[in-house]
Amino acid sequence: MYEALINYINSYSTTQLSEPDIAAIKDTFKPGKIKKKEFLLKEGQVCNLTAFVINGALRQYSVDEKGSEHIVGLYIENWWASDRESWTTLTPSLYNIDAWENTDVLLLTRDAYYERIKPIPAFIEMNSKLQENNAFSVQKRLHALISLPAEKRYIDLINAYPQFLQRFPQHIIASYLGITKETLSRVRRQLSNK
Amino acid sequence: MYEALINYINSYSTTQLSEPDIAAIKDTFKPGKIKKKEFLLKEGQVCNLTAFVINGALRQYSVDEKGSEHIVGLYIENWWASDRESWTTLTPSLYNIDAWENTDVLLLTRDAYYERIKPIPAFIEMNSKLQENNAFSVQKRLHALISLPAEKRYIDLINAYPQFLQRFPQHIIASYLGITKETLSRVRRQLSNK
Repeated sequence: MYEALINYINSYSTTQLSEPDIAAIKDTFKPGKIKKKEFLLKEGQVCNLTAFVINGALRQYSVDEKGSEHIVGLYIENWWASDRESWTTLTPSLYNIDAWENTDVLLLTRDAYYERIKPIPAFIEMNSKLQENNAFSVQKRLHALISLPAEKRYIDLINAYPQFLQRFPQHIIASYLGITKETLSRVRRQLSNK
Repeated sequence: MYEALINYINSYSTTQLSEPDIAAIKDTFKPGKIKKKEFLLKEGQVCNLTAFVINGALRQYSVDEKGSEHIVGLYIENWWASDRESWTTLTPSLYNIDAWENTDVLLLTRDAYYERIKPIPAFIEMNSKLQENNAFSVQKRLHALISLPAEKRYIDLINAYPQFLQRFPQHIIASYLGITKETLSRVRRQLSNK
């Protein structure tokens, strides 16, 4: 189960993980299971855990006063799940992260991260690339939300993350896109008629 | 005019700029003027310049097929204006950046940045903090777009960047918030009646 993580880190770095690095990873990342509907993080908690997804699917979302969920992130195999702002600034999270499927993860605590993992050169390089990629993709998603019609946003999602459509139901995809379920149904009908 | 930039970098860093660092900054950042409506960056160009705003105001936006502008960023004194994705990946920008007021900037080219500025310790620390802050604020704005009503988004903007409301007209503020001018007018009427 560590192989997926090790390969992932190496794939993002020109420096490969050394034997001591791999030992540190095996020592600090703890295998965990999050059952469907169980939480990795609850709104109001400080995010002290980062999860690397081995198998399964998670959602990150807020819940508004009316009880509606607003999906900010979806995570499947080879994604990292955490609330980066809460993790970094030690402030209570605005978000919940829960498992949409029974999920196998490798869990890293903040203390272990700062002591053992953060200084690893391959990890530094991976982290820097991921943060950059994340900044670009959040910026794109923001731009899409203020500028693109629902149909274009849906097509962009199909192209960028086709797996999401297999793994999550329509109402979650709609929320991720910032549209209603009804709008998503209309968009899908229109596309299938084209 | 360099004093604003030097103070800015020092304010974001525990390591202060040394005399040789300050000499490098004065040598590489070139004073420039961008007249109202002139462009710092045009859609389709690779972003080779980053501007630190000394005086004035700029907008970053895309233009859709119907000719409508969609504002992704607003920049005033002590902000950095550039398209980070295009700057980093050398890909054509999706955005325009132009001056909303006659603007004084300090301009840095990509080559000068990588050769002289990027290695400066205080700059590394500032850059890391700014990228983090930017990631958090873009994430917040994205979450607001999918979850918050227009009124709440407007109030959050007043609290976060009150200066924007003095410097930019209603249609730009509306676009930045991802709402129509008419919705913004209604929200402002409702708030002034409270």
